[in-house]
Amino acid sequence: MMNQIEQEKIKIIPNGSISSPKGFKAGGIHCGIRKKKKDLGIIISDVPAASAAVYTMNIFQAAPLQVTKESLADSPYLQAVVVNSGNANAFTAEQGLWDAYEMRDAVAKTFNLSPMNVAVSSTGVIGERLPIERITAGIAKLPESLSSDNGWDFGEAILTTDTFVKSIAIEISVEGKKVIIGGTAKGSGMIHPNMATMLAFITTDANIHPDVLQKLLRDVTDQSFNMITVDGDTSTNDMVLTMANGLAENTPLDEYHPDWEVFYQGFTYVAKQLAKWIAKDGEGATKLVSVEVHGATSPMMAKAIAKKIVGSNLVKTAIYGADGNWGRIIMAIGNSGYQVDPQLIDITIGPITVLKHGLKTFYSEEKVSEALSQDEVKIHVDLHLGNCSAEAWGCDLTYEYVRINASYRT
Amino acid sequence: MMNQIEQEKIKIIPNGSISSPKGFKAGGIHCGIRKKKKDLGIIISDVPAASAAVYTMNIFQAAPLQVTKESLADSPYLQAVVVNSGNANAFTAEQGLWDAYEMRDAVAKTFNLSPMNVAVSSTGVIGERLPIERITAGIAKLPESLSSDNGWDFGEAILTTDTFVKSIAIEISVEGKKVIIGGTAKGSGMIHPNMATMLAFITTDANIHPDVLQKLLRDVTDQSFNMITVDGDTSTNDMVLTMANGLAENTPLDEYHPDWEVFYQGFTYVAKQLAKWIAKDGEGATKLVSVEVHGATSPMMAKAIAKKIVGSNLVKTAIYGADGNWGRIIMAIGNSGYQVDPQLIDITIGPITVLKHGLKTFYSEEKVSEALSQDEVKIHVDLHLGNCSAEAWGCDLTYEYVRINASYRT
Repeated sequence: MMNQIEQEKIKIIPNGSISSPKGFKAGGIHCGIRKKKKDLGIIISDVPAASAAVYTMNIFQAAPLQVTKESLADSPYLQAVVVNSGNANAFTAEQGLWDAYEMRDAVAKTFNLSPMNVAVSSTGVIGERLPIERITAGIAKLPESLSSDNGWDFGEAILTTDTFVKSIAIEISVEGKKVIIGGTAKGSGMIHPNMATMLAFITTDANIHPDVLQKLLRDVTDQSFNMITVDGDTSTNDMVLTMANGLAENTPLDEYHPDWEVFYQGFTYVAKQLAKWIAKDGEGATKLVSVEVHGATSPMMAKAIAKKIVGSNLVKTAIYGADGNWGRIIMAIGNSGYQVDPQLIDITIGPITVLKHGLKTFYSEEKVSEALSQDEVKIHVDLHLGNCSAEAWGCDLTYEYVRINASYRT
Repeated sequence: MMNQIEQEKIKIIPNGSISSPKGFKAGGIHCGIRKKKKDLGIIISDVPAASAAVYTMNIFQAAPLQVTKESLADSPYLQAVVVNSGNANAFTAEQGLWDAYEMRDAVAKTFNLSPMNVAVSSTGVIGERLPIERITAGIAKLPESLSSDNGWDFGEAILTTDTFVKSIAIEISVEGKKVIIGGTAKGSGMIHPNMATMLAFITTDANIHPDVLQKLLRDVTDQSFNMITVDGDTSTNDMVLTMANGLAENTPLDEYHPDWEVFYQGFTYVAKQLAKWIAKDGEGATKLVSVEVHGATSPMMAKAIAKKIVGSNLVKTAIYGADGNWGRIIMAIGNSGYQVDPQLIDITIGPITVLKHGLKTFYSEEKVSEALSQDEVKIHVDLHLGNCSAEAWGCDLTYEYVRINASYRT
């Protein structure tokens, strides 16, 4: 569901992807890290693109993140991003760093770029050396797969335990000019011996200064990728990276630009959509869970409470069982560490208010259970203390989650 | 396994319980809150006992906790503790408070005590009114059930989804006099529509000032009950309460007393044993998981890392699947927020070192899997940064956990 600006100003491009914006091409192939599935992908911009990234908060940052940081620190313009799945190149010591450099150099050489204009990213097994020969051989083949129609191949090549490709592109108007924003992501699903990794890539042909883009990305990530929880664990390889190549030829966007609001909303729409798909595709998940918290006294408080609810194993299992156990929502709120007044709280599950001013209403258990049986379950909490809100997304906790994560290496 | 002081100075009393210390009696009956199981229990001391308690950190503290706090604030001496299972009397507004008062008054009247010498505790359903008539009728019958042999009945009456009674008593020597410490607890298991509650009661006939007892309890709780994790959620009703009636007639214990060390170790032994049983009896658990972290630069750091490892869903499912996935242990360490050096870390699973100075060793997957198939799984991490250690306990995450917590009310 879109809000008003989104409805009026944002046009979704059918089958859109990260190669939809002007001047972007992408490709994805199988290079032999995984048995059969695509495992190597690339995004290329015709011209150097203003770029920005945010990284995992896990203190062990994998080698590719360090190399990408180095590229962006040199100058915040990228022309290529290469990603492999099947091996995270994490906890691989000095060797991992050399392998990530070699991967970056191979792309630079193949596409005739400066290594400092190339970013690298990896997802998969932790603690095992990257099969660098297969990757460099694969990189040599990437030019053949490159096309402005192949964004979905890239989206496929970065997946690990995800069950579907997450790809979107939208069109907005800036100064009457067409601007496209595309995105793709992979989820925080984890299967042995893979590490969790959340990767997201957002491309646009908008003209925007790297500093403005970095600030935008941080802000939007806080409302989207940082508001999803699959199982509370944060990987060593998480990264969100964005590239803006300016080929739409608008005057540079910033918060004083008359079309800033629509660009901001469009960028946020893409990020939130990717984040929701990641949550929906959490390992073993059968439902997307959306939690809205209103009436908090600060944005931090609203965010913390929304995430506590969506992240609670007890709430997640109750939702799996379609069980209207609002006591667990209360408990999660109480575990946030923030002072709230129990006698002011309203809780609504789907369309049914189960708690009003801290008192249980006379609701039908059957109707609550029905609301909890939908593909998307909405929980709405009003604390009635202030004016701040937040939304968080997650999924239910199922037998399948346990099966996937308990099973032996195969 | 006991350490040296424990082995030499602590004697475990067969079938010991909270009624083993001199002057303590206990009882447990069925009063009709639950269908068939015992649901009302009491501990009585012949004389007022120095008492201390620690409470849940959840900001919503249930009514009985507020009433118990009031009793202890009046004077830190209790003579009775009454506990019901089947209903938590939590999130019951003003009414819940009146019901808890009525429960306390009924015990005071029946046993001819001051209400301020009575503590109350409840565990079970949240958000529903206490069936106070059944409870007061049950309290009137409690004197018949009271005996110094009935500690296990009390232990049974406080259970909810626990699968076994947790009861222990030990004997130590203070000034050559026999001192007994008894304990019982119920686990943090949760089943719909019950709330999680961890309750523990420790009794002793030692003579100790309430202030010293409070300090001891806080210190020991930090090393025992606060170091267990079943699913990361904290209930509104959690409480650890201790009573020391002084009938052993030792001179008051404090840290300058020559036998302080043995008393401290004995008290800690009882608390840790109860804590480990709670972890082992976590919902759906098949294994007790012990995580020791060494070489931290502060006790806080050691504790935080041990709890992150034992609380990670990914580590817990890997242990369920007997899968030696040390990458998940690394990830949990990295999520603690503390700076550690990856190149110094050793990780040992059971007897097998899988990571040495940050590098994977040449271990046998089969042997690691064997170590992970034991009833108690031990994980040992050395950070090689400092001299601080901590131990935490938890359990595996299983299909059964999901089944229990997803199932409808019956």
